[in-house]
Amino acid sequence: MKSMDGLESVLSRGVDSIYPSRNLLLEKLRRQKLRIYNGIDPTSTSIHLGHSIILRKLAQFQKLGHKIILVFGDFTGMVGDPSGKDTQRKPLTRRQVLENSSSYKSLVGKILDFKKNPPEIFFNSNWWDKVKAPEILEMLSHFTVQQLLERDMFQERIEKRRPIAASEFLYPILQGYDSVAIDTDVEIGGTDQTFNMLVGREFMKIKEKKEKFVITIPLLEGTDGRKMSKSFGNTIDLNEEPNQMFGKIMSIKDDLIVKYFTLLTDVGLDEISKIEESLKNSTINPRDAKINLALEIVKIYHGESEAKNAQNEFERVFQEGGVPETKKVGSKTGKIKALDLIMNLEMASSRSEAKRLIEQGGVKSNGEKIVNPNQLIDVEIGTIVQIGKLKAVEIMRS
Amino acid sequence: MKSMDGLESVLSRGVDSIYPSRNLLLEKLRRQKLRIYNGIDPTSTSIHLGHSIILRKLAQFQKLGHKIILVFGDFTGMVGDPSGKDTQRKPLTRRQVLENSSSYKSLVGKILDFKKNPPEIFFNSNWWDKVKAPEILEMLSHFTVQQLLERDMFQERIEKRRPIAASEFLYPILQGYDSVAIDTDVEIGGTDQTFNMLVGREFMKIKEKKEKFVITIPLLEGTDGRKMSKSFGNTIDLNEEPNQMFGKIMSIKDDLIVKYFTLLTDVGLDEISKIEESLKNSTINPRDAKINLALEIVKIYHGESEAKNAQNEFERVFQEGGVPETKKVGSKTGKIKALDLIMNLEMASSRSEAKRLIEQGGVKSNGEKIVNPNQLIDVEIGTIVQIGKLKAVEIMRS
Repeated sequence: MKSMDGLESVLSRGVDSIYPSRNLLLEKLRRQKLRIYNGIDPTSTSIHLGHSIILRKLAQFQKLGHKIILVFGDFTGMVGDPSGKDTQRKPLTRRQVLENSSSYKSLVGKILDFKKNPPEIFFNSNWWDKVKAPEILEMLSHFTVQQLLERDMFQERIEKRRPIAASEFLYPILQGYDSVAIDTDVEIGGTDQTFNMLVGREFMKIKEKKEKFVITIPLLEGTDGRKMSKSFGNTIDLNEEPNQMFGKIMSIKDDLIVKYFTLLTDVGLDEISKIEESLKNSTINPRDAKINLALEIVKIYHGESEAKNAQNEFERVFQEGGVPETKKVGSKTGKIKALDLIMNLEMASSRSEAKRLIEQGGVKSNGEKIVNPNQLIDVEIGTIVQIGKLKAVEIMRS
Repeated sequence: MKSMDGLESVLSRGVDSIYPSRNLLLEKLRRQKLRIYNGIDPTSTSIHLGHSIILRKLAQFQKLGHKIILVFGDFTGMVGDPSGKDTQRKPLTRRQVLENSSSYKSLVGKILDFKKNPPEIFFNSNWWDKVKAPEILEMLSHFTVQQLLERDMFQERIEKRRPIAASEFLYPILQGYDSVAIDTDVEIGGTDQTFNMLVGREFMKIKEKKEKFVITIPLLEGTDGRKMSKSFGNTIDLNEEPNQMFGKIMSIKDDLIVKYFTLLTDVGLDEISKIEESLKNSTINPRDAKINLALEIVKIYHGESEAKNAQNEFERVFQEGGVPETKKVGSKTGKIKALDLIMNLEMASSRSEAKRLIEQGGVKSNGEKIVNPNQLIDVEIGTIVQIGKLKAVEIMRS
């Protein structure tokens, strides 16, 4: 590891694969400044730690003087990327996409530098709104149905007899054309984007006789061990309060500690190796490794002192058997369905997260466990609703 | 049969199927004047008798006061309809399509009335050139990949590992939108168009909440018994000279006589039944039935007296053992490949037709049969090249 220079390390830490090859890209990056791009379909208002890995990788290239390009998919977001989705995505409206984009942009600013060598930002409706039918058909003529069907995920949908909309079927070609439109040298994305990005590579060869490089980044597991995804309600979002972010990181499975350190912090690889070793030998308590991890991550998004405060609050609650700080929140009173109550009190970011929290037994009303999302709760002034050991609210008049 | 009125006869003679049902369409046609449409991608400069069946059906509706609409696919022709094609069609350029369209239009005038209740003619680039990416994707979102893949022909291509271009895959949806753009009540096409036309029916329901009727017309066999198609070189074209048209009709297989009478002439069904009976009982010579048939068809496109002349010429050559009238045609002399010679002398309309004629043993040079399209022929001034019993040319200096 010691022998790697900065660039080699950027191309290996937290990188899954590089197409056509790591060495060719390394050579090219040494010779000239490249245009390096990531496309984001803003499907929600938040960015989670899974997304942050790609943004952090972009920030490393940015520091080395390369030009970062972000494409917000306000057009492709309306089509719906089928990547990793075993059912059809509900297409977004342009209005939703634009709202989400503006929220994304401010979160991206926590990772990328918008002053020095700032990223170029595009909305892909800029070109797509102008593309007409004859051009689209010309684009499509370069690809075959068989090529597109090769995709695992489509095969899976066909087997499970789940519909593939003709529009989402073409998604890889649409994403591919974005590469051509911004004339990029490199595209970075999650491993679930590999197919789409390679179609874009093909497109660049056909249209511009140019070799676009593709860098794939591993996917991150969320708090429940499954892929981190808004639809699983298991994300840790960049805009979460320090206490909440800290607590969620403490709740990840122990075998993810090393992966989180590697992908989400600036801790050196040597030190991470030592932590890994210590965990194996049980010379360190996983809880202590996680506290260290949570501190490192929260620091990045909220600064050192907020991270410290979060650690103190966490330790107070857990080690001293305390109860979480209780916020007073206005609410209607009377009989309210548990799921609706959690949403009204804004204690979960989505109905699916709220449902999961209840079903995992983490939600209590006046100390009594709620087991069924449809259960009717007697809500009165003074009722205390608690989620896990980190969040609690006391009902006041709304 | 006697009990059918004109409309019933129009909906049964030479009709394969009607969607959703013959009775519903009959009712509707009795109540009001409808917009009845056929789409043609002009893939060549000529129209053959196979196409004429649809045009003749349209003419029948036109006479009853319904509005006929023809859509020339100058946009869809560039995409290439995969119907009935087991390999990918070579897309046409817009220039080719426009040239072909103008030739088509003049041929259509032989069947449809352009003075009284004239057809509306559209080029589908009119709307397609304006359709933009977001609209196309919206259109596609109503259909699934599985629906489109159900098509026999695509399944066949997948089995044979022949490519299906993503563009031609979408052809049915493109054709479907044409129905919406012209707001048609009925679409007529060959049975090989059934899938495309039913997608258009679906489209009309989704977009306009309207029930579009679909009428399918049987496909016609050509001079070699296979489906009549330019790519087989077995067509009888509407713009062929009377002698040639007459001779080609005489060359069809005997078991097609009744089908040709039914689909291509105005001879009454009663009389056709009698001919069918007589052929079965061998109380009529198939050659005589065919002469009758050829007369009827040539009459439609060239008038009665030209048809009679063609019959006389045919009988002179065949019955009196005569040789066909010999035209003098200029040509290079020397050793020339048989296939090239036939093409240079314009004795076949395509290389595939020329090849077929040679391989079927119909081509002679100075009385000697040519058996191989690649055979070198000694061409001199005075050499006589003969195809079948109907065409002969004598070489003169070019």
